[in-house]
Amino acid sequence: MMPSQSSQLPEFIFGALSTSEGRLKQVRMSRIGLYHDVDLNPIAPMENEPISIAVRVGAEIAIKSIRLHYTTDTAIPLSPFNFEHPSIETLPMHRTRIEWDTLQWGYLEQWTANIPGQPEGTQISYAITATTTNNQTIACPYVNVDLLKQQFDPEDLDFKTLEKRYRENQPQIYQFIVSSQTIPSWIRNAIIYQIFVDRFAPDPETPFQTPSDRSGIYGGTLNGIYSRLNYLQDLGVTCLWLTPIFPSPSHHGYDPIDYSTVEPRIGTLEDWKKLIAEAHRRGIRIILDYVVNHVSSEHLAFKTALGDRDHPTYEWFRFRDYPHEYDCFFDVPGQPELNSDHLGVREYFIQNACQWLQQGCDGFRLDYAHGVSHAFWSHFRDATRRTKSDSVTLGEVTQPPSVMKSYTGRMDGCLDFRLLELLRGFFVFENLTVSQFDHALEQHLAYFGSSLVLPSFLDNHDMNRFLWVVDGDQRRLKLAALCQFTLPHPPIIYYGTEVGLNQLENVGRLEESRLPMLWGKEQDSSLLAFYKQLIAWRRQTHHHWRHTRQPWLLDDTNRVYGYECGEYAIVLNANSRAFTFSIADHWRSPHLILTTDLNTLWNSQSNQLSLPSFAGAIFQKQN
Amino acid sequence: MMPSQSSQLPEFIFGALSTSEGRLKQVRMSRIGLYHDVDLNPIAPMENEPISIAVRVGAEIAIKSIRLHYTTDTAIPLSPFNFEHPSIETLPMHRTRIEWDTLQWGYLEQWTANIPGQPEGTQISYAITATTTNNQTIACPYVNVDLLKQQFDPEDLDFKTLEKRYRENQPQIYQFIVSSQTIPSWIRNAIIYQIFVDRFAPDPETPFQTPSDRSGIYGGTLNGIYSRLNYLQDLGVTCLWLTPIFPSPSHHGYDPIDYSTVEPRIGTLEDWKKLIAEAHRRGIRIILDYVVNHVSSEHLAFKTALGDRDHPTYEWFRFRDYPHEYDCFFDVPGQPELNSDHLGVREYFIQNACQWLQQGCDGFRLDYAHGVSHAFWSHFRDATRRTKSDSVTLGEVTQPPSVMKSYTGRMDGCLDFRLLELLRGFFVFENLTVSQFDHALEQHLAYFGSSLVLPSFLDNHDMNRFLWVVDGDQRRLKLAALCQFTLPHPPIIYYGTEVGLNQLENVGRLEESRLPMLWGKEQDSSLLAFYKQLIAWRRQTHHHWRHTRQPWLLDDTNRVYGYECGEYAIVLNANSRAFTFSIADHWRSPHLILTTDLNTLWNSQSNQLSLPSFAGAIFQKQN
Repeated sequence: MMPSQSSQLPEFIFGALSTSEGRLKQVRMSRIGLYHDVDLNPIAPMENEPISIAVRVGAEIAIKSIRLHYTTDTAIPLSPFNFEHPSIETLPMHRTRIEWDTLQWGYLEQWTANIPGQPEGTQISYAITATTTNNQTIACPYVNVDLLKQQFDPEDLDFKTLEKRYRENQPQIYQFIVSSQTIPSWIRNAIIYQIFVDRFAPDPETPFQTPSDRSGIYGGTLNGIYSRLNYLQDLGVTCLWLTPIFPSPSHHGYDPIDYSTVEPRIGTLEDWKKLIAEAHRRGIRIILDYVVNHVSSEHLAFKTALGDRDHPTYEWFRFRDYPHEYDCFFDVPGQPELNSDHLGVREYFIQNACQWLQQGCDGFRLDYAHGVSHAFWSHFRDATRRTKSDSVTLGEVTQPPSVMKSYTGRMDGCLDFRLLELLRGFFVFENLTVSQFDHALEQHLAYFGSSLVLPSFLDNHDMNRFLWVVDGDQRRLKLAALCQFTLPHPPIIYYGTEVGLNQLENVGRLEESRLPMLWGKEQDSSLLAFYKQLIAWRRQTHHHWRHTRQPWLLDDTNRVYGYECGEYAIVLNANSRAFTFSIADHWRSPHLILTTDLNTLWNSQSNQLSLPSFAGAIFQKQN
Repeated sequence: MMPSQSSQLPEFIFGALSTSEGRLKQVRMSRIGLYHDVDLNPIAPMENEPISIAVRVGAEIAIKSIRLHYTTDTAIPLSPFNFEHPSIETLPMHRTRIEWDTLQWGYLEQWTANIPGQPEGTQISYAITATTTNNQTIACPYVNVDLLKQQFDPEDLDFKTLEKRYRENQPQIYQFIVSSQTIPSWIRNAIIYQIFVDRFAPDPETPFQTPSDRSGIYGGTLNGIYSRLNYLQDLGVTCLWLTPIFPSPSHHGYDPIDYSTVEPRIGTLEDWKKLIAEAHRRGIRIILDYVVNHVSSEHLAFKTALGDRDHPTYEWFRFRDYPHEYDCFFDVPGQPELNSDHLGVREYFIQNACQWLQQGCDGFRLDYAHGVSHAFWSHFRDATRRTKSDSVTLGEVTQPPSVMKSYTGRMDGCLDFRLLELLRGFFVFENLTVSQFDHALEQHLAYFGSSLVLPSFLDNHDMNRFLWVVDGDQRRLKLAALCQFTLPHPPIIYYGTEVGLNQLENVGRLEESRLPMLWGKEQDSSLLAFYKQLIAWRRQTHHHWRHTRQPWLLDDTNRVYGYECGEYAIVLNANSRAFTFSIADHWRSPHLILTTDLNTLWNSQSNQLSLPSFAGAIFQKQN
């Protein structure tokens, strides 16, 4: 173990779920009330597949009967507590499981109903209502917060979240679209580059601005990116992800005011069109960051709602005490949250997204995607795919893998925060042995299969840069990147990583990891050369990495990890001591392809490999 | 709510599982290591049924392959780490599930293998071994305690228990017997009376002794019981459960010295034979309390082992540091625990049990049964049933229902501690509403179905008497008994309950609830009359109570509970206020059968029922 000042700090990648207490709360909260969390089988029904729909009942409520109400006719919207229309089918649900739960000290139930297979493209809407043993009608989701307050301590359950979630006491209308859509192959093979727009490149011949505070404006623009396409093409990346480019009061743009145009500081729609055209000409796609969970309080929809309670956009938001109390993102009043199931909200966001696709954009990175309903994303993917058949949707879901998996069929993929945790755990914090790391990777990849694309990353704009947490040790960055680039899913590079961009202070304020891009002589050319080599080689070999990985060396004592995939063998020395061994024990006469450290010694006569500390290498097997 | 000094005390029916922390620990401990906890499907295989055997793998260990070794030939014992004999089949197990576990923050795996159906009576022995990704061979059960100590705090896991459980690092040999045996019908219809032998009845014409301490000897004997058979027959019970009658240094007998004879203080084998013959003549069966988990340190097997390490009985015990350190029951050195999988232990206990059956006994109440292996109980039931075809086995399993259920096919039933918790929760501590109580009963009964007999009780010798926790309020005792006697499973009455026996002090020492039986004028004749009436009526109607119960009144506000079963309707007023209502809303012209309170007013003309506080009544529906 090599703890350093920065690496000793805990990481909160999963927010409240980063602690044992937070995890326990989430587990408890999934075992109370009437709860339906995309419990479909199959999770993403295809045409003519019968669909089993399940609902869970916590120990503390007593249910006599449960009903499933559904429609396959988009013309008949379900409305809460009115399921009388003849086009609405109502089925009794049946108790299909009773299981004892020691944690909650009671029985949990599962009730199920089956609906017949439907044609491709059918939109299925459904709601669930139940009757308690004392004849109260309740709707799913449901919790009896008052009752729970008698039974649980505030440490056990997050009552605030429960009250927020279940405030409305009316059935949630769940929706999905029967779809046999597949994930566009280009995203599986992509090398993605994340550009934090304000911090990447100002207009040509213009220097970055020098704001007094790192939350100020540095002046990155679309034209700046355009002017650096040579650099990006040379680097070898095939897809850019731009942080939000829409009008916004902030340097980061995650609180848009308008989704139809470009923030004037950043450029114009014409600049965008020029950028996307030239990027496409060079074989580079661009996906845009899209925020549906919330908007800026300066957004017209919110301002209108504030001024007029009868205006249609009043319903877009969730006012608790009009006009001053409303749901907002992390309790920031400047970022009111949206009701993503409102038809007006859905139409607004989908229409704008489709317009961006028509203007060349190749897809979306979906900010805080788990704050938005599954029904929304089902519609969003359906509409965007119809507008541009190979466009993609990638969610930011900072939730456990089980939640990520629930987006199967609703998005093409999720950013892989669990993998991030493993990569940083193994290469930075050293809280995983080689065996544990290998095992966790194997399980994680097996759990998802190919149902979702899970782009990998070492860091992003919301956390310490990787280079910062390893105290600037580029050996460890290169080693981790070598691992990242030999996994099946597409890698993301956070701008500047490839040239040694670091931080000045630890992330307390997120801006610390968003310093302006290094250009010219500020760039570390050796690191850049390594990244170019790695990217070029990944592009040549991308078809290999979806083969099954097989470990061939799990040396927990020396922290040396060897695995093979396709015709390649990788060996990583995640230790501060050099490691020398006879590779012939594992491989006959392999060919050295790439190493992270020029001091790596490989004697093909004697089959001896000497890996310096924190060095890795890729070999090709001889046939 | 009516808290009183005694009722406010917490109850620890489930020991460490009585607290939220203890439950969480158990949940975590079932999700680590390599773990097989009777994960059979079906749980109790019958002849020719294919059997699926599963093992669970915790997130912290990395498994490459798992093997199931089994034999169906009793002549070929499996021996740890030697599965080479040609009669031993070895099957590869396959990973059949990967699921994310938020609590453990990792993936859990399930691996499964299937073995073909076998003929009736086949003894199947099996063991599970695995190879880790770094080629270590491990055996099930397995935990890496050193590793866990790095990952978990002592509050999260009970390391002492883990170290004890997994100390041996060799495969456990699991066993079960393919059996289509059914549960003898007499036990389903029984009214059981628990006699704490030292405290029930001295020899005729002899008074109880008056020891200086309540842990002393009061002098109850078998002849005393014999002399009270008139009383018991008159009371109406059909089965006696005697606490241990074997030689023992203690007043309670739960630490036997010899299992083949009777404690001289209590009587002789002749006394036993006389008692059982007369009881049978009167239609009363007797089951004996049988302790397999541990013996007295005065038991010859232990004394011999202490004196001679090479003596065969050395292996009966689990010495950690011979001769002074060994596993013992609740860390009491006077009660060394047995290795119930040792063939010598098995033979000794089964042989003695069968001898008691030959001497008239009708079955066993199995003390601390979850401390003994499932394999043992499988053999025990098989052997005792072959000796006496309608003998029964009832386990004391103070574990959650999921554990109770794992004894299906290994015992005929378990004492229902979960029901005890519900009955005391509703009628004493008032921590359940009517709806919650009804719901919990419904789920509990549905979870088990008829796979096990679950005798019900309001109290026993290890806790405060029911009458004590209701501050002597007989109304509440009668009300709870009325409920107990209208549930499907056979009721147990703890000696003296029927005549108002109470305590002098709160249970700190368990002896407080074991005061000598009241006889003659000390008995509460009114309570006794009530119990006689209840028992007689239950005996007449026992076939009704296995029908489905249906609630017809769940009045949470007034704590009034009405339910029907077969042709009877029960109404319970679990409140300190009287309750009057028109029963015609629910039942037309019912006939009042029995009430707990003579002040109950029933006007069949007006259909008005007035139930005094804490009163209940049974009605028969008019056809």
